[in-house]
Amino acid sequence: MSEIEVLKIASRSEPKAVAGALATVIRKNKGVELQAIGAGAVNQAIKAIIISRGYLSPNGIDIVFAPSFTNVNIDGEERTAIRLVIETK
Amino acid sequence: MSEIEVLKIASRSEPKAVAGALATVIRKNKGVELQAIGAGAVNQAIKAIIISRGYLSPNGIDIVFAPSFTNVNIDGEERTAIRLVIETK
Repeated sequence: MSEIEVLKIASRSEPKAVAGALATVIRKNKGVELQAIGAGAVNQAIKAIIISRGYLSPNGIDIVFAPSFTNVNIDGEERTAIRLVIETK
Repeated sequence: MSEIEVLKIASRSEPKAVAGALATVIRKNKGVELQAIGAGAVNQAIKAIIISRGYLSPNGIDIVFAPSFTNVNIDGEERTAIRLVIETK
């Protein structure tokens, strides 16, 4: 896994759309992480992971995630984001 | 892992306190899952997991999570909760 794709999730992100993107990246065997700022965005990210597990399960792929904090700079302001690094089992 | 401990998380749950409880259960090698309803609760649950990873890392334990939806009955009303099942690596 040479590249890591970062999917930025907002509270208005559509979980099914994110789940589709996530499944596509994982099927290509690339590394992927979701990045979310705020409770609404974190909730959408978790829903997307749950939905993508259903998309990947027919391919015999199961995923788990390892969460961590990270600092991101948005318009010159430091914000704490939550990173969800996806791992295949 | 014979028993599964279920920790129910609310939006007002204190992530550090949940993280401590989580780390204690995992060190005892028991199965554990977090259950959260609503964006605020899911966000607190993820923060608790991140903090508990820091508590467990000196013990050489790393944890990852498999999320899923589940239905719970609260005061006779059916609600969709998010389950976060802990797996040690």
